[in-house]
Amino acid sequence: ATAANPIRATLFPGDGIGPEIAESVKQVFNAADVPIEWEEHFVGTEVDPRTQSYLTWESLESVRRNGVGLKGPMATPIGKGHRSLNLTLRKELGLYANVRPCYSLPGYKTRYDDVDLVTIRENTEGEYSGLEHQVVRGVVESLKIITRHASLRVAEYAFHYAKSHGRQRVSAIHKANIMRMSDGLFLKCCREVAEKYPEIKYEEVIIDNCCMMLVKNPTLFDVLVMPNLYGDIISDLCAGLIGGLGLTPSCNIGEGGIALAEAVHGSAPDIAGKNLANPTALLLSSVTMLRHLELHDKADRIQDAILNTISEGKYRTGDLGGKSTTTEFTKAVIDHL
Amino acid sequence: ATAANPIRATLFPGDGIGPEIAESVKQVFNAADVPIEWEEHFVGTEVDPRTQSYLTWESLESVRRNGVGLKGPMATPIGKGHRSLNLTLRKELGLYANVRPCYSLPGYKTRYDDVDLVTIRENTEGEYSGLEHQVVRGVVESLKIITRHASLRVAEYAFHYAKSHGRQRVSAIHKANIMRMSDGLFLKCCREVAEKYPEIKYEEVIIDNCCMMLVKNPTLFDVLVMPNLYGDIISDLCAGLIGGLGLTPSCNIGEGGIALAEAVHGSAPDIAGKNLANPTALLLSSVTMLRHLELHDKADRIQDAILNTISEGKYRTGDLGGKSTTTEFTKAVIDHL
Ligand SMILES: CC(C)[C@H](C(=O)O)[C@@H](O)C(=O)O
Ligand SMILES: CC(C)[C@H](C(=O)O)[C@@H](O)C(=O)O
Repeated sequence: ATAANPIRATLFPGDGIGPEIAESVKQVFNAADVPIEWEEHFVGTEVDPRTQSYLTWESLESVRRNGVGLKGPMATPIGKGHRSLNLTLRKELGLYANVRPCYSLPGYKTRYDDVDLVTIRENTEGEYSGLEHQVVRGVVESLKIITRHASLRVAEYAFHYAKSHGRQRVSAIHKANIMRMSDGLFLKCCREVAEKYPEIKYEEVIIDNCCMMLVKNPTLFDVLVMPNLYGDIISDLCAGLIGGLGLTPSCNIGEGGIALAEAVHGSAPDIAGKNLANPTALLLSSVTMLRHLELHDKADRIQDAILNTISEGKYRTGDLGGKSTTTEFTKAVIDHL
Repeated sequence: ATAANPIRATLFPGDGIGPEIAESVKQVFNAADVPIEWEEHFVGTEVDPRTQSYLTWESLESVRRNGVGLKGPMATPIGKGHRSLNLTLRKELGLYANVRPCYSLPGYKTRYDDVDLVTIRENTEGEYSGLEHQVVRGVVESLKIITRHASLRVAEYAFHYAKSHGRQRVSAIHKANIMRMSDGLFLKCCREVAEKYPEIKYEEVIIDNCCMMLVKNPTLFDVLVMPNLYGDIISDLCAGLIGGLGLTPSCNIGEGGIALAEAVHGSAPDIAGKNLANPTALLLSSVTMLRHLELHDKADRIQDAILNTISEGKYRTGDLGGKSTTTEFTKAVIDHL
């Protein structure tokens, strides 16, 4: 890829603060001469007046064609309205693994130092099946679905990731002492894959115990792989250890090598349009996208600029206790390139 | 209740380190002149040679008759053997609410200060239904069951607890943005009960966000009520904040006012019989039992002695970085009475 012959990538700015932080990524990529041409598409919780749609077929096709994209936050209303757009994208694009690196940011002090772990979450089934029904009035069943297919796939990805990123250990997180069949199947698949990676240490940790260990000593962990809901819970817990979802990147991996990086924090409608949002999570997510494209030089350069800006501490947005606007912070990152 | 006319309470010492830490409770109760007569019964993961049973009808009847009991740890094998005895007891005795107070221990330093919250967990259904089946080879379904009956019951208990313990707020923890029907029903029940307690603040927090908030600032929470699995996860996370399961009491509440206090840590077979176990969690659990019996003077006296012993720091067991044996620690607690 070169400036004359760029890679096309899809951009979904998203709801709320999405457009502002997406703008920040565009500016940083420009300044760093990243050979990417954005194909911007609308996906959002309010219908797009131009298309009368939340999510058009063209938006999905764009990611499928480009194989790579970046997505801002989208609201998921609780218990009403249409199905979560986040889930719809995962489903439609077959995004089976959600990867969330989580590391202590130098210069941004929390209660924990030296956190450096990666959660890999099964992203298509489990408690997110969407299958629920009322058996009789006042009795509801929700189905958790665990398949060999999806469990093997995410386990493969986790071990592949561990190996290719120089990681030492994969911990499978489960509750197979209670859900013996479903989480039991998940573990069985992890064990099968583990055998093919003798150089990676493999262990199994029960989810409740895992959460206790994480808050006591998160440096005990390296790569964690787990079913959908546990991944949802543990990745947020881990984000909390290093400062919150505003600082943690996320990338979704799909069949055929699709990658959709995304900021997993909320769309913060209360500060939308006010130039107050912290673009860090989306910027760091865009870095994972660059790594996926093997543009490691650009990735390193941008990541260093972000981390140095935060570490320096002069320009920080309100969520990190600073007073900078989104554009001031973005400019500071560009100055650090 | 007096020494001449004591209250009868059931005691299940449990597996592994169970008998040693149960002995510690017996000695402390003796020294504090607690008017309780123990009815000791066997429940355990290995069959009792005398009865050829894991759990006899007499053991269950003892709790039902006495209405109050104390239980040591029992192992739950992963994916093999009989069903968890912990679950069997919850089911057989209708123990619908699991209450875990979690507070920072003065003098025992962790990353968090001033933690003071209580998790109240629905204890009979949800993801613990035990209903699982293989649909076709490689496809497993587990059923999560949420009922209006059990949800109202635990919500009632949580608000009653909050009010009677001078607490200000109840947070219902859920994932109703995904499990709209099941967690939706749980929330609906909480809201219904909340209306009857206008003096208690009520809020709803999504579980992933709750975990992030807990590790960032646990003092944001007061009483938390939630379905079974979330309670399992969050109560262990909270225990981790203040030092681990070796320090946190737990009490199960059943229909008709039954109370079974229990230590929820493992049975630690590796150190069993070596006089190394920390009896604190079982001792603090026995204190919740005394409070349930409204023996508040005794409860205060014993709780103060435990906390002062730990805070003083001279006698601590190995898990807390000390060198004391179980009997030395127990003697120190007795000396602090
Ligand atoms: C918004 C919500 C549907 C989503 C999830 O539960 O997966 C979010 O919490 C996440 O982690 O991406
Ligand atoms: C041992 C296990 C069955 C149990 C549970 O999952 O409930 C334990 O973790 C607990 O919290 O009491």
